Amino acid sequence: MNKKGLAILMRTRMRPNDARDFARSPLANLVNQTLPNSDGSQSSGRLVQGAPQQRNEKLNASSNNERDFEVVRESMHSAISLSKTEILDSVLNDFSEGYFSLSYENRRKLLELLAKEYDLNRTQVRDLIKQYLGLELPGGSDNAPSTGTEEEACLSAFYRIERNLRYALKPAYEVLFERLNTHPGGLKFLSILRADILSILAEENIVSLRALDSYLKEKLSTWLSPAALELHQITWHDPASLLEKIVAYEAVHPISNLIDLKRRLGLGRRCFGYLHPAIPGEPLIFIEVALMKNVAQTVQEVLWDDPPSPECEATSALFYSISSTQPGLQGINLRRFLIKRVITLVKREMTNISTFATLSPIPGYMQWLLSKLASQSKLSEGEDIQHSPADTSGSTFWENILEPEEERALMDASVEFTSGKNSMEVLFNLLTSPNHEWTSSDKLLSALKPSLMRLCARYLLQEKKRGKALDSVANFHLQNGAMVERINWMADRSEKGLNQSGGIMVNYVYRLGKIEDYARSYFSSGHIHTSSDLSRYVKPLEEPQVTTL
Amino acid sequence: MNKKGLAILMRTRMRPNDARDFARSPLANLVNQTLPNSDGSQSSGRLVQGAPQQRNEKLNASSNNERDFEVVRESMHSAISLSKTEILDSVLNDFSEGYFSLSYENRRKLLELLAKEYDLNRTQVRDLIKQYLGLELPGGSDNAPSTGTEEEACLSAFYRIERNLRYALKPAYEVLFERLNTHPGGLKFLSILRADILSILAEENIVSLRALDSYLKEKLSTWLSPAALELHQITWHDPASLLEKIVAYEAVHPISNLIDLKRRLGLGRRCFGYLHPAIPGEPLIFIEVALMKNVAQTVQEVLWDDPPSPECEATSALFYSISSTQPGLQGINLRRFLIKRVITLVKREMTNISTFATLSPIPGYMQWLLSKLASQSKLSEGEDIQHSPADTSGSTFWENILEPEEERALMDASVEFTSGKNSMEVLFNLLTSPNHEWTSSDKLLSALKPSLMRLCARYLLQEKKRGKALDSVANFHLQNGAMVERINWMADRSEKGLNQSGGIMVNYVYRLGKIEDYARSYFSSGHIHTSSDLSRYVKPLEEPQVTTL
Repeated sequence: MNKKGLAILMRTRMRPNDARDFARSPLANLVNQTLPNSDGSQSSGRLVQGAPQQRNEKLNASSNNERDFEVVRESMHSAISLSKTEILDSVLNDFSEGYFSLSYENRRKLLELLAKEYDLNRTQVRDLIKQYLGLELPGGSDNAPSTGTEEEACLSAFYRIERNLRYALKPAYEVLFERLNTHPGGLKFLSILRADILSILAEENIVSLRALDSYLKEKLSTWLSPAALELHQITWHDPASLLEKIVAYEAVHPISNLIDLKRRLGLGRRCFGYLHPAIPGEPLIFIEVALMKNVAQTVQEVLWDDPPSPECEATSALFYSISSTQPGLQGINLRRFLIKRVITLVKREMTNISTFATLSPIPGYMQWLLSKLASQSKLSEGEDIQHSPADTSGSTFWENILEPEEERALMDASVEFTSGKNSMEVLFNLLTSPNHEWTSSDKLLSALKPSLMRLCARYLLQEKKRGKALDSVANFHLQNGAMVERINWMADRSEKGLNQSGGIMVNYVYRLGKIEDYARSYFSSGHIHTSSDLSRYVKPLEEPQVTTL
Repeated sequence: MNKKGLAILMRTRMRPNDARDFARSPLANLVNQTLPNSDGSQSSGRLVQGAPQQRNEKLNASSNNERDFEVVRESMHSAISLSKTEILDSVLNDFSEGYFSLSYENRRKLLELLAKEYDLNRTQVRDLIKQYLGLELPGGSDNAPSTGTEEEACLSAFYRIERNLRYALKPAYEVLFERLNTHPGGLKFLSILRADILSILAEENIVSLRALDSYLKEKLSTWLSPAALELHQITWHDPASLLEKIVAYEAVHPISNLIDLKRRLGLGRRCFGYLHPAIPGEPLIFIEVALMKNVAQTVQEVLWDDPPSPECEATSALFYSISSTQPGLQGINLRRFLIKRVITLVKREMTNISTFATLSPIPGYMQWLLSKLASQSKLSEGEDIQHSPADTSGSTFWENILEPEEERALMDASVEFTSGKNSMEVLFNLLTSPNHEWTSSDKLLSALKPSLMRLCARYLLQEKKRGKALDSVANFHLQNGAMVERINWMADRSEKGLNQSGGIMVNYVYRLGKIEDYARSYFSSGHIHTSSDLSRYVKPLEEPQVTTL
């Protein structure tokens, strides 16, 4: 291929979310939407990877549903009840292939069955605990203290029943999970299984299935403990099969074509992933880092074509994207370990890097602000009370969101655009206008900037829920020991950026040597460390934090 | 260095058991003896690897014992009770360094303390189980069947208490284990800790410590599940630090010098190890394989200088040595998975290999035979009854161990060597003679061969304990699906070989395609598959197996 042809190929637009190449299961076909995960990160969609048998599923699914279901149910039963034997491998193969051939309805039926009928043997549990209650604690009576050997014998009985009780409290489906874990491809299958379970639970809260999920999640957390994971630097030298996954799952700033991909892995950048030996060639999560002289303030600075400065002159490592490739591993927090490992590694290998920062979205800001504006607007109308900013008595729910100067500037600038009963309704309308019109007027932008920035700082630094930062991404970094350094206006003008946070992005900074202290104070008292620049945005409160319910 | 110098260096005798280079803990210094593991394999000794602080231990141990103990106890307490926080790493470091500085007595004291005081909260457990007994099983009463939602709510309560009970039944020391597991170097430390625990338990059966060991063993089994282990082919290209461990831990046929090591990893051979990412550069177990045209019958055939035939002509893969490097992982069966993986790998990569066999010791044979000879000899004297071989009535314990021709040949040949009241005592004396004199007389050798071989076959094929083969190595291979192919006279003339089994070694063969069936029949009925050659040694019994208690 000539140079021109190659250049064209490299720039051809890839459609990363069009992952039909990853044979999707019928379940994912129904549930393919991009929802933020509970920790604020994005996943590209509930992609469920099927086995090569996917090609046959159209043939099987419709005509042979009932027969397939019973067959699969049988193989699941065998997988659980079979005594320790060598044929387990083929039974597990049968089961997983059979599972992939089932329709959504049948998978749901099977999983509910698993949750209900392969649960605990409650009779056995009751028997054991009755025995246990019959035991006397050593040294518990007022008689003469028991001798060493008496005490040992007494303790023996406790240990024995406690151990048996631990076993009896393990649901039978644990056997299936354990066996799959040691089976080639089994861990991946479990991850897919859990993705299906989460989809089902998102539609209906089935108690027994939720209990099963809770158990499975614990098991997966154990198996995916960082001790078992390998950190791998992802580069252009990695297999295409691995890189394809990077493209498919890049959740924060989608990769547009091959040249973009090559850049993301090239000069001035690093890309690291966590792999598990049982799921080879597929990073469970990966992080993208840009090496720069300063801490980037906008997305555009990070997604450069050519690095702004040579690598050897870089003093900052900027984490600008963390993506997860396994919807079934939702809730299992691997990101934290990944960041920690990457910081350690970069610190060691690139001694010129002294600053570790992120350029992060603020996924909850707009949602919080709009809801506040809406409720305050209503209250304002309903109450019709003259409040001075100093008046904190009376209704505890009313608060002056905008400051007087902000209100004035807002009303002035918004005259041509929208109207409303009060400043809050006006702001609400502006922010929810289609196509984000407000961003196209310089006048509006400069009118809105002070308030939006101030309120964003407040949202990040002061809004809490049960002692933790309300914004999930903030909470994540703060738990890791980061501080909130700076917020950046119009840092992300994309649809998503404007929707989530009015285009504002935040830099969290991991200060070497302070990480442990900051994490500890955040954990114990919810204290959020911030730069002096940022703290000037927020009025100091009497109590250190405002807790919203 | 010139060629001659290099040749000398390569042939200089290494002392593999002199592992003082691996800074041993005081505990191992006391307990350094070679004992067979419960599955019949050998480990070179209870080597416990200490931290670099070993050099300081002489200074610390004597003068600062009590203070060190309290400090270490404190750090252990912190490691367990600390809330989730970033300073955990340094606390765990303090603890493990402190632990290594303790004397044997203090380690024992600390471990007993851990077992007793960081156990369950039994009050909490009792409360929970009282709550649990108060719950009514859904659908258990004779009233109208509960509605869907009632049942769900009812189940909810069960799930909740069951889950809380699972947590309450976890001893507090589990926290220490879990935290160490995710800590760099922690898994290795746990392995050392367990080696110490096993040493202590070997001296005294402390009930609480045994319960802790049982728990720790389960945890380690989970963390070392084959899904988490990597198979690695060990070659001369591996780091010296890794190869040093191969030399130190080679348990079956010790490696004598560097040239021997190079040979074991070179032409016509393969060496595979299982590694865990958290214990880098240190195979947990490793297996040595020789590629040959025939199945070797003696050790000498395997430990060649140059391979007997080119690799490409080899049709047999012979497993001649499996060694474990972690005394603390005793009882955690990784060998089985290793063999399975290696067979799969060799089968795939070397299509000319059609036979997979072992050349294995029979560690329990002599012990069994001598004890039988001794007891039969006594009975024979005591009873003074004329028995014909067909007479199985009367004392069920008396049996004719030797056949008439064997007795005659034995008594003839042994006249110059020893005497005894009966043939069994004579045989006993011969087999226990110092320096195994009996092996130096050809006459004796040919007189003893038929009986020793026959009895060996009987031992392997018929002696059982609770349905499983009495010989632990046999049991291991049979569980894996092997068959007993052949026994070989004077296969191992070393001190160890003669002590264990009178020099006889056995070939177990893994027949591709039959492995699963054989394993299953062994598991379900104790059936041992054997070659026709070998089965002619043993009289068929009325019941398929003789069970000894």
